[in-house]
Amino acid sequence: MVYLTRRETFNAAHKLYNNKWTEEQNIEVFGKCANKNWHGHNYELFVTVKGNPNPDTGFIMNVKDLSRIIKKEIIDKLDHKNLNVDVDLIPENIMPSTENLAVIIWDILNPLIKDAILHSVKLVETENIFVEYFG
Amino acid sequence: MVYLTRRETFNAAHKLYNNKWTEEQNIEVFGKCANKNWHGHNYELFVTVKGNPNPDTGFIMNVKDLSRIIKKEIIDKLDHKNLNVDVDLIPENIMPSTENLAVIIWDILNPLIKDAILHSVKLVETENIFVEYFG
Amino acid sequence: MVYLTRRETFNAAHKLYNNKWTEEQNIEVFGKCANKNWHGHNYELFVTVKGNPNPDTGFIMNVKDLSRIIKKEIIDKLDHKNLNVDVDLIPENIMPSTENLAVIIWDILNPLIKDAILHSVKLVETENIFVEYFG
Amino acid sequence: MVYLTRRETFNAAHKLYNNKWTEEQNIEVFGKCANKNWHGHNYELFVTVKGNPNPDTGFIMNVKDLSRIIKKEIIDKLDHKNLNVDVDLIPENIMPSTENLAVIIWDILNPLIKDAILHSVKLVETENIFVEYFG
Amino acid sequence: MVYLTRRETFNAAHKLYNNKWTEEQNIEVFGKCANKNWHGHNYELFVTVKGNPNPDTGFIMNVKDLSRIIKKEIIDKLDHKNLNVDVDLIPENIMPSTENLAVIIWDILNPLIKDAILHSVKLVETENIFVEYFG
Amino acid sequence: MVYLTRRETFNAAHKLYNNKWTEEQNIEVFGKCANKNWHGHNYELFVTVKGNPNPDTGFIMNVKDLSRIIKKEIIDKLDHKNLNVDVDLIPENIMPSTENLAVIIWDILNPLIKDAILHSVKLVETENIFVEYFG
Repeated sequence: MVYLTRRETFNAAHKLYNNKWTEEQNIEVFGKCANKNWHGHNYELFVTVKGNPNPDTGFIMNVKDLSRIIKKEIIDKLDHKNLNVDVDLIPENIMPSTENLAVIIWDILNPLIKDAILHSVKLVETENIFVEYFG
Repeated sequence: MVYLTRRETFNAAHKLYNNKWTEEQNIEVFGKCANKNWHGHNYELFVTVKGNPNPDTGFIMNVKDLSRIIKKEIIDKLDHKNLNVDVDLIPENIMPSTENLAVIIWDILNPLIKDAILHSVKLVETENIFVEYFG
Repeated sequence: MVYLTRRETFNAAHKLYNNKWTEEQNIEVFGKCANKNWHGHNYELFVTVKGNPNPDTGFIMNVKDLSRIIKKEIIDKLDHKNLNVDVDLIPENIMPSTENLAVIIWDILNPLIKDAILHSVKLVETENIFVEYFG
Repeated sequence: MVYLTRRETFNAAHKLYNNKWTEEQNIEVFGKCANKNWHGHNYELFVTVKGNPNPDTGFIMNVKDLSRIIKKEIIDKLDHKNLNVDVDLIPENIMPSTENLAVIIWDILNPLIKDAILHSVKLVETENIFVEYFG
Repeated sequence: MVYLTRRETFNAAHKLYNNKWTEEQNIEVFGKCANKNWHGHNYELFVTVKGNPNPDTGFIMNVKDLSRIIKKEIIDKLDHKNLNVDVDLIPENIMPSTENLAVIIWDILNPLIKDAILHSVKLVETENIFVEYFG
Repeated sequence: MVYLTRRETFNAAHKLYNNKWTEEQNIEVFGKCANKNWHGHNYELFVTVKGNPNPDTGFIMNVKDLSRIIKKEIIDKLDHKNLNVDVDLIPENIMPSTENLAVIIWDILNPLIKDAILHSVKLVETENIFVEYFG
């Protein structure tokens, strides 16, 4: 088994705000992330697949196909968007935390990657915070 | 003259949208950056000052003082904010482009840095785009 | 299970020198790292915890709490210190290698992280050398 | 078990071109990577070993020994070379893909690392693509 | 005057070899870079333009236009190419050193950038070597 | 004129402590940097030279020569050393601040670089602080 990782990037706005809570509770738990007019990030997304290299190509899967799938299904839907407002793939009752976003990205990509096995989704929110999900 | 640079970071939402134009004009000029519900970035701010090292300290100015000024005057006002909506230091009729933001940051910091001479403000919007202003 | 990683940094001096050995033996094994007046590094510490996102917050654990624990228990005790001389949390008979330091950091953090499960401690000594410990 | 990683770098030319196929098939599968006069990369190689720290040194294995083995067996043979033409350690019928190269590097290093256990070989081709192999 | 920089990347093969010299002279001067079957790099190109922000857009020039010009005129011609063999924009008697390449890129871009003034071309060959040209 | 930059790295211990002052004054001015048992950094040194490319080589000066001079005169004397105690090239009455160190490195390198003109010395102390000197 060899593991292949492709990086893509997107820029998005979001806030962490639980509508079931008071303003005070939101600020207590989410701090500055609860700012009602949103803030934003340059996200880095690393998608890792695994498999055995094909003798004819040396590839687990063609990294251009992997990139095309990620761009079409994830980047085109999240880039330059508001994760709380604009994005159908995040259900309305789901907090757009980096943790939840990584799981949602996995669930979208997993059935679409047919030439190899999806191994992990890593989502970098800032240089100091990132999240990984392995299914 | 020796040049000293301090890096600070902030995360913010913004959009590029000229209210004097139609939606179509905005999309033609600003593309995805005109998304009406905003997007966002992890900004990196590099502030450079110049001067002669003090023989007692070896410092042009104390980098902790420089950091404190940048944090109080810029980071605390921009971090986890919406640059179009939340931020008093960006006048309402000024587009919150990275270019304009660098000039605004210079104009705020310049009178406050007394122990050395402000040389430049560099603002990194993404890994592929940055802006510099020298006054 | 989702994995969440927080990065923190500290700057410290250390040397690798076994007092049971001669100067020559120390230089043979540790090379320049045995310099008797110490040298130093900018360390990067990555702490990874795992758990299931809380439906109300989208968090495995609040990354601000994780950061606060790491800063109070590790960074405040190691930053701008001499790892051989100043630091109580490294026992005197333990070599302050990056390997041993990662294990010590794990042992300190593990009982203090209650909202999630500690998964790994990664300690980067230089751009070319890093260590990981999984308990 | 503690895991220790050493990074080394090399610069090399390669192309992805299957001689059993037509020019058209090669361009369809490999795209620009099939350019007949080659292209090239700055490769980053991360070799990870695991073991228990030695009480006298605090080391899993001496990172200088690890570096020396990687440089002698891998870097000296790949750096400033053409991976398709110049390099004996890549068999002629094996495509010099990053996947295959990671496996070849593992197979060379594994019997030579005696003081610890080889855990993984990670090979970074560009900032957007990397491969890992765990044996 | 505000300065705006756009980064683009390309991967290429090259060698440094002066056909007027003997093999020995080439190896003495260029070392491993003279390897007759080429080697390669991941190049990073930073193009900086300067001007005054337009009040309607906040832009010196539209960074999408700058990116499009760089991609069409430079990246599409250099990416996944052999700089000694494949590339018309490098004259045959000109050594494809990073220095010469930066000058050539400047000379191509300078007449094409009309909305702002070209300020500098920076070309990064490895993490340890880069070149800048200011016209 | 083309500008060529070479990066080298070194790891060193230092403290900022003025012996003419009391302990309290030192802590007030230098904070944690005054820790009496030192701390340390991974320093990155960027040396930039300028000149006209030689038609035979495409080089301003041979980057291997530049690297050799920097390593022999600077890195070998600073790497894995204590900048306050071990290093002859820093006079005893000069504070080993990054500012002073950049000036000292310039003064050493300037007469030794004969094939091109020394343009700048940049010294990176942490990811958040760096210094530049232009003579």
